[in-house]
Amino acid sequence: MAGTAQIGVTGLAVMGRNLARNFARNGYSVAVHNRTASRTRELVERFGDEGTFVPAESAEEFVAALERPRRLIIMVKAGAPTDAVIDEFAALLEPGDIIVDGGNAHFADTRRREAALRERGLHFVGSGISGGEEGALLGPSIMPGGSTESYTQLGPMLEAIAAKAPDGSPCCTHIGSDGAGHFVKMVHNGIEYADMQLIAEAYDLLRRAAGFEPAEIADTFRGWNTGRLDSYLIEITAEVLAHVDAATGRPFIDIVADQAEQKGTGRWTVQLALDLGVPVNGIAEAVFARSLSGHAELRAVGQGLAGPAPATLAPDEAERFAVQVEQALYASKVVSYTQGFHQMQAAAAEYGWSLDLGAIAGIWRGGCIIRAAFLDRITTAYAKDPQLPSLLADDRFADEVGGAQEAWRAVVATATRLGIPAPGFATALSYYDALRAERLPAALTQGQRDFFGAHTYRRVDREGVFHTRWSEDRAEVQND
Amino acid sequence: MAGTAQIGVTGLAVMGRNLARNFARNGYSVAVHNRTASRTRELVERFGDEGTFVPAESAEEFVAALERPRRLIIMVKAGAPTDAVIDEFAALLEPGDIIVDGGNAHFADTRRREAALRERGLHFVGSGISGGEEGALLGPSIMPGGSTESYTQLGPMLEAIAAKAPDGSPCCTHIGSDGAGHFVKMVHNGIEYADMQLIAEAYDLLRRAAGFEPAEIADTFRGWNTGRLDSYLIEITAEVLAHVDAATGRPFIDIVADQAEQKGTGRWTVQLALDLGVPVNGIAEAVFARSLSGHAELRAVGQGLAGPAPATLAPDEAERFAVQVEQALYASKVVSYTQGFHQMQAAAAEYGWSLDLGAIAGIWRGGCIIRAAFLDRITTAYAKDPQLPSLLADDRFADEVGGAQEAWRAVVATATRLGIPAPGFATALSYYDALRAERLPAALTQGQRDFFGAHTYRRVDREGVFHTRWSEDRAEVQND
Repeated sequence: MAGTAQIGVTGLAVMGRNLARNFARNGYSVAVHNRTASRTRELVERFGDEGTFVPAESAEEFVAALERPRRLIIMVKAGAPTDAVIDEFAALLEPGDIIVDGGNAHFADTRRREAALRERGLHFVGSGISGGEEGALLGPSIMPGGSTESYTQLGPMLEAIAAKAPDGSPCCTHIGSDGAGHFVKMVHNGIEYADMQLIAEAYDLLRRAAGFEPAEIADTFRGWNTGRLDSYLIEITAEVLAHVDAATGRPFIDIVADQAEQKGTGRWTVQLALDLGVPVNGIAEAVFARSLSGHAELRAVGQGLAGPAPATLAPDEAERFAVQVEQALYASKVVSYTQGFHQMQAAAAEYGWSLDLGAIAGIWRGGCIIRAAFLDRITTAYAKDPQLPSLLADDRFADEVGGAQEAWRAVVATATRLGIPAPGFATALSYYDALRAERLPAALTQGQRDFFGAHTYRRVDREGVFHTRWSEDRAEVQND
Repeated sequence: MAGTAQIGVTGLAVMGRNLARNFARNGYSVAVHNRTASRTRELVERFGDEGTFVPAESAEEFVAALERPRRLIIMVKAGAPTDAVIDEFAALLEPGDIIVDGGNAHFADTRRREAALRERGLHFVGSGISGGEEGALLGPSIMPGGSTESYTQLGPMLEAIAAKAPDGSPCCTHIGSDGAGHFVKMVHNGIEYADMQLIAEAYDLLRRAAGFEPAEIADTFRGWNTGRLDSYLIEITAEVLAHVDAATGRPFIDIVADQAEQKGTGRWTVQLALDLGVPVNGIAEAVFARSLSGHAELRAVGQGLAGPAPATLAPDEAERFAVQVEQALYASKVVSYTQGFHQMQAAAAEYGWSLDLGAIAGIWRGGCIIRAAFLDRITTAYAKDPQLPSLLADDRFADEVGGAQEAWRAVVATATRLGIPAPGFATALSYYDALRAERLPAALTQGQRDFFGAHTYRRVDREGVFHTRWSEDRAEVQND
């Protein structure tokens, strides 16, 4: 027996509830279900006038309420709870039905689940959904993976509830097969970590090197937000820095404990980049910076360590420095995105996805944390050359970063001299300079490896694999 | 039926063969076995006069040749081949017998295997063995995990064949239960990656910033090798840099392709550090630097990017710079080891191992790639305070790094200005400066997280978990 609800949402904590309301507010009839039925009733009581909700008390009732092919979105905790709910519903569904996992699953779990459900004739769509509670209600950025057929059924509805970019296009596109959606959502989060770390360093330098007060720095960020750095994160940084703590009258930023927390997707991004052999130095430094901030016992040790004499820049230097920090921040941001997009490109090759990187940048323009005017430039770069080997191969990015490099160096050198950590700026610049290098000292690494482990090396002047008999006559032998 | 051989080695590729010869040369009777029996015969024919070998053609014959409790070392490829061999022999062994895996297994595999064999009354010892082919024959650094009972049986034999430190003590100690040995070996390799990257950067700066020729830099490294950097890697760096390519008459270093390879333990170290929440920035940058060097297509892009005008230091500056580079290298090395030892300390807490970090530094003084006079200082530091929260909490290290920090900053600033990548030096200095910071901009990160995701924050002035209603009245609410 099939019902009339066009889509169903099970798991009605705040994300699931808001997503269900979003569908209803967009004119879809929505079946709603929760393990504890009181949540379902509460939703209908509080928000029933927003549209058509079909409450279901049992899994069977929920499935029966859906039109066919059934579209069913699971919004429960990643891991074992997701598996349990999938198992429960898969038993009740029929071939052609679609299960969507809208949580933050690890893409490898999504691949496993997709393969298992495909065997049973069901579509499984792992979908990244970005934008938090507010995004879920008002329009998130949506990154669905899974089969093309499933997107034909789901896409129009997801695009209807998605955020809209400034040009009106929906922030949702079919990312690619099996785990592609969750992978891309993960990289989005990794890039978000890097963006936040770079902003934190910019603030720290303006405060400690240039001597500006939080309110002044808020103004600086507001100014940056009218230029090429225009973005949600820059906007809220200004808000946070301008905020005054009511209890103490001090700048809010000074009463917040400086121990950053994290939930795991940044870590996953780095771990998978390592497997793919892609350098994502910026994301790694961001993850490590959060970890380090939380190690109170290590930081206590650090208080006894010698540093340079405290100093701040002279007022006229400080103004010039602020301009340089904008350039360093922008250049470092371009490098972070270069690394993140490289990771997606490598993953596409490894896992057989055909990712449209320009379209992915496009759907991040609204609804999600890293939404920014900047993303248009990435879309444009890939439109000009879909085979772009790196964002830095795009003329515009190359020119912008090239134009910023002098200021970028000045900022990193100043941070170094004054003893203010700027690992994100520094590692981005190192990456840029390593790409630029005609020769890298990796040649020495290879020489050492051949010396201690006979790991062999290649030569610059002819093909083949070679070994030098270091502990014998130091003659070179060809190994192939 | 039990035989008389005191130990057995199965898997007679060069590592296994050399290990078997090492036991024989130390007076032990060694049963030897290989899947392809010709290798076993070859060993006995070529090296039979070095001691007592008991060749076995079948697994049954091999097991029968061993005295009880049987001690059997597996030297085959990590992964599925190791599992296959374990399964084959476990079926033939009796309670109390000991299987040793001397390969480079992932510690999680070792934990799994140890638990499974313990169920069957067998001891499973995952043992790191460092030093390559030559070490296996002449004395490796040995890092056995597993039960205390197994070490009682095995320890004396392993200590006999291990390398000896300069003070004569064997480079082998019982590391800890289940996977501890393989974990510690993995961190050893991670630290090795970082050491090699720092040396590569030092060479690159001496070459490109200071304008020295490889032969001159070889002399500089020889000089460093008489001081606090005295180590195997510094020694062989001088050898590699001094070597002249016979075919071209050019410095060897200039004819080696500058694409570094890697086998995976560096990557594992970083991945597991991320799981443990331990910043190992230096190892991560080393792994990424190798990956980047191998991405020819990216490096081609980099050739078009703008950099500073090429420049080298004036001759008198160059001499001073070389002295500063030694200080930067030493300080960065201390930071790398600080991070690696932090990771072992965190792993001990997570996996329930009681690691003696001073003893671990001690058994790395001989036989392995990172052997160095420096390790004595680590042993001494932990002897003074076994609860040392960080190597940088040791007065001597703190003084040395503090004494080097000015030069270290000068080197990183020079690299930054001249456009020469020094990610290892830079990230080590950032870590040092982040530890020193009274306040970190992680406070801003927490403020942003609370703004966009209601992730809450703690305050510096009172207990509790707080949230500011950013999109409403901006009042603060206490969440617990």
